[in-house]
Amino acid sequence: MNHIPTLSEIQEAHERIKPFIHHTPVLTSASINQLAGCEIYFKCENFQKIGAFKARGGMNAVLSLSPEEQEKGITTHSSGNHAQAIALAAIAVGTKAYIVMPSNAPNIKKNGVKALNGEIIECEPTLEARESTVQQVIERTGATFVHPFNNYDVIAGQATATVELIGEVTHLDVIMAPVGGGGLLSGTALATHYLLPNAEVIAGEPEGAADAVLSFQTGKVEKAPYIKTIADGLMTTLGDKTLEIIRKYVKDIIIVSDEEIIAAMKLIWERLKIVIEPSCAVPFAALLKEKERFKGKRVGIILTGGNVDLGKLPF
Amino acid sequence: MNHIPTLSEIQEAHERIKPFIHHTPVLTSASINQLAGCEIYFKCENFQKIGAFKARGGMNAVLSLSPEEQEKGITTHSSGNHAQAIALAAIAVGTKAYIVMPSNAPNIKKNGVKALNGEIIECEPTLEARESTVQQVIERTGATFVHPFNNYDVIAGQATATVELIGEVTHLDVIMAPVGGGGLLSGTALATHYLLPNAEVIAGEPEGAADAVLSFQTGKVEKAPYIKTIADGLMTTLGDKTLEIIRKYVKDIIIVSDEEIIAAMKLIWERLKIVIEPSCAVPFAALLKEKERFKGKRVGIILTGGNVDLGKLPF
Repeated sequence: MNHIPTLSEIQEAHERIKPFIHHTPVLTSASINQLAGCEIYFKCENFQKIGAFKARGGMNAVLSLSPEEQEKGITTHSSGNHAQAIALAAIAVGTKAYIVMPSNAPNIKKNGVKALNGEIIECEPTLEARESTVQQVIERTGATFVHPFNNYDVIAGQATATVELIGEVTHLDVIMAPVGGGGLLSGTALATHYLLPNAEVIAGEPEGAADAVLSFQTGKVEKAPYIKTIADGLMTTLGDKTLEIIRKYVKDIIIVSDEEIIAAMKLIWERLKIVIEPSCAVPFAALLKEKERFKGKRVGIILTGGNVDLGKLPF
Repeated sequence: MNHIPTLSEIQEAHERIKPFIHHTPVLTSASINQLAGCEIYFKCENFQKIGAFKARGGMNAVLSLSPEEQEKGITTHSSGNHAQAIALAAIAVGTKAYIVMPSNAPNIKKNGVKALNGEIIECEPTLEARESTVQQVIERTGATFVHPFNNYDVIAGQATATVELIGEVTHLDVIMAPVGGGGLLSGTALATHYLLPNAEVIAGEPEGAADAVLSFQTGKVEKAPYIKTIADGLMTTLGDKTLEIIRKYVKDIIIVSDEEIIAAMKLIWERLKIVIEPSCAVPFAALLKEKERFKGKRVGIILTGGNVDLGKLPF
């Protein structure tokens, strides 16, 4: 797709991926609502296939390719959930996934890709090396590159989490998501714009990867002043496509510290009894930080994933 | 109730407590099924009110009292989930809960009871002190004592988790639960006996609190050879009521080590993305230990609770 997805394209994406993904549950907690002073509906993408919402976007992008393109395989560079999403999608269409990963990627991530039959191609841990290695894969195999977020088919896929949330929970006033590269946030904002135009979309971003809030202000893809955060899924900058959508349809981006992220993450583990990764707690941390703003409202929060190293918990 | 609950008494218990408890979800995981070689349906009582199945039994026992009894209050001795269950049930009928707790009970447990308006009466950390302190409460207030497990109304309440599971998942071959005092296991066995008489009920018990497996053999309430296990919810011996039901309707009790419990717990956290307490992982550990026995079967497992100190995880 070469344009911002329309409502019907998002709905088509949803139909397309439905057989391959989970319709994830929405959880609530009376004690969290009491503490937060509003009604929160958590859309649990930590229960999604591969443990993260990324399964939606990767699946839609791969299913949207022509049979000829699919046959030659799919490639991407990622050390995170998008790598597994592409490997899963390649299985769904019976093709190969070539995943470029930095040589220092944790074994747990490599094993996740291998378990889904993905072929790992290691490279130096720099963006340049990643991109040139992907280029080599493309030249060798003819595989199609699927960008983790700056891709309209991926964005349409990520939007389907919000389509499900809005279809299930009525009268939401606010919908929240974290922002890294902005694929999920773009999709969330688009779906909300089309289906619930009076609701606000508000993002959370870590203080230690605060690029999106800058880009949001200047209108250019900015780098973060510094990168140091526990929310390791949110370290990337926006892309031109995600920036445009976010500038148009997102109301605000709230910055939170790692301490606030860890406290919010712990609350969700304790009260909802679910495992979420730190990146995932960012919008809830933002809500708790600016409680007054959300007082008495009905708030949907996309919980993005649950792939966390249990041996390295921050509490 | 002064007799083993009948099917209709269990069904009445279910109707009685429904407005006050959650109908908890059943979760599955393709990767866990692959690894275990069977199909497992996890009944997630970690999502229950107060974070544990105990809400069911406590609620049923308290709701079954006469208005005169309810008015005088409820008492129990417990430093665990049953304390919160009774406090919650007391709120439901608008009465007082007097919870006798050992003076060395962790603050997190005390705070849980206080948050539910329970009155804590501290005593020395011995069973004798607990019982005599409860006796004093009864003499002073006229409150009714609700035993954590050796009580038919409590057992009928715990049985309702299995009623829901069997109502939702067809053709189960085996239903599994952990065994501590045996309230949950008795309820599970009764509900299965009435509703799915061809299914087997198999329990898991920690090696470091292996009293039930002995009692199961001898027919008397036996003590464990030694007590040392991470499964802190399963340290008590059976009661006469639970022993009788378990001897009649349970097929087998499988013993597992703490290492096996921790490995099973970690797998559930990683794959199902949910928070469960160690006691809760015991039946799944038992299944993994005797995989061949469960091969290709449809197995329901009651996940009992998710109240775990995140600061003291075993991995």
